[in-house]
Amino acid sequence: MGKIIYNGELKTRSDVKVDIEDRGYQFGDGIYEVIRVYNGEVFASNMHVNRLMDSAKMIQLKVPLTVAEIEALVKELIAEDKLRNGIVYMQLTRGVCSRTHAFPINEVEPVFVAYTKEMPYTGKVKPGVKGVTTDDIRWLRCNIKSLNLLGNILAKQQAVEASCDEAIQHRDGKVTEGSSSNVAIMVNGTLKTHPATNLILNGITRQVMLKLCADNDIPYVEEAFTVEEMMAADEVLYTSTSVEVTPIINIDGQSIANGEPGPITKSLQKLFSEEIERQCGAV
Amino acid sequence: MGKIIYNGELKTRSDVKVDIEDRGYQFGDGIYEVIRVYNGEVFASNMHVNRLMDSAKMIQLKVPLTVAEIEALVKELIAEDKLRNGIVYMQLTRGVCSRTHAFPINEVEPVFVAYTKEMPYTGKVKPGVKGVTTDDIRWLRCNIKSLNLLGNILAKQQAVEASCDEAIQHRDGKVTEGSSSNVAIMVNGTLKTHPATNLILNGITRQVMLKLCADNDIPYVEEAFTVEEMMAADEVLYTSTSVEVTPIINIDGQSIANGEPGPITKSLQKLFSEEIERQCGAV
Repeated sequence: MGKIIYNGELKTRSDVKVDIEDRGYQFGDGIYEVIRVYNGEVFASNMHVNRLMDSAKMIQLKVPLTVAEIEALVKELIAEDKLRNGIVYMQLTRGVCSRTHAFPINEVEPVFVAYTKEMPYTGKVKPGVKGVTTDDIRWLRCNIKSLNLLGNILAKQQAVEASCDEAIQHRDGKVTEGSSSNVAIMVNGTLKTHPATNLILNGITRQVMLKLCADNDIPYVEEAFTVEEMMAADEVLYTSTSVEVTPIINIDGQSIANGEPGPITKSLQKLFSEEIERQCGAV
Repeated sequence: MGKIIYNGELKTRSDVKVDIEDRGYQFGDGIYEVIRVYNGEVFASNMHVNRLMDSAKMIQLKVPLTVAEIEALVKELIAEDKLRNGIVYMQLTRGVCSRTHAFPINEVEPVFVAYTKEMPYTGKVKPGVKGVTTDDIRWLRCNIKSLNLLGNILAKQQAVEASCDEAIQHRDGKVTEGSSSNVAIMVNGTLKTHPATNLILNGITRQVMLKLCADNDIPYVEEAFTVEEMMAADEVLYTSTSVEVTPIINIDGQSIANGEPGPITKSLQKLFSEEIERQCGAV
């Protein structure tokens, strides 16, 4: 990570600082995306940048760049940093102005920042991980990929403190999603995952996985499930840009089924790695 | 506003910038306070700084300064800026480290920032303002004065777009609080306001007002009320560090009672201005 895009320009990372009255800093008034890079190629680039646009719209934030411009900047950044495998983090905040809750009255320039980070590709087969269930205390606009992430952080921290990899959040008894991932269960051969409502972030990996299900005759339903259903499921998995498709084999100290990654999760991992190869070449 | 406190040191405002990987910027992982200054004197200083400590505790954030140290720094800042009437804004974020949801594993230094802004004292009698009701979409830890303020911002923006001064949020039919204030109603001589649960921020002005009620034989109950109860109330008022005690005389285009500030609200304004004078001298 040497370069950074700051408002459309490529700069040296250490030269870029933000103002304390950037609304991102004082209100979390902004949105973000994390995009995976394999082999120097961007995975699902268009889907991510379009979601950034959707998030922006939902908080009435004007994006000063087009989808094509952002995608081009991301490519330029990857080339500059000679990134092979890793992520691009980007965020857009409403800009710098004297602190007041309502949007700035005068035009302010939104602040766009993007940089890369190395992250090795760990191959298609990932060992199963442990989860812990937590109350979903977040707001009712989780479909916006915003910088208001304190609820997510506190959930993830609970997972870490329980020596687990992910916190599985539930609201009113229904599982919503992980603290930085989506969660799905497998029951009698059918994949079940929370519908893309205001209570979850419609993950790109989730969307890619559901398309892979559809294309490969793996039945699925977008339907909320209870914690009890999850504990009794045949398989549990979670998805995100970082973890791709990963089995969860133990939750709250209890094994899921026989405590081993299940066959459909393995099939989905294989299909997902093929999709990576299709988009980015052999990793 | 010329000076700024940055991690315990007094600096020139323009010299202070924050890193893009400050967790305040990427997660809203931090807390804040806004303290009023009258006559060069700090109002309810100790209550504010103690609440900052409480907020910090609830997100497991170690404050690198003591209450006394923060209060001393605030006084130093006010003196440096020669502030007569205005506010001190302060915030504390978890610090700068490579982006990951869970708390940093290695020790990082929290970032403490404080600066002043002029705000004239408008006198004890404030004209009534207009409110608009909005859904409370925020998280379930509103008792933490955190930097995750997107829900508050979006509510306030709705108020502004409806040419109103404040958004009055309600959850499951019950009024919680304003987007940057607490709300109370007066029914048959008794003041009613939402109890200090996880659904509201226990405002310092709210607390001072309730103490004034207790000391001056104004009956009050800390009990949630419905939107319908509010619309039919004898008086509605809202409180915050910025607006002090201010009547709301019209909500959603409908007058409250006769559309004039009510007698108990006026009494509370008088009592509050006397409290300011007691703490800070005649303004």
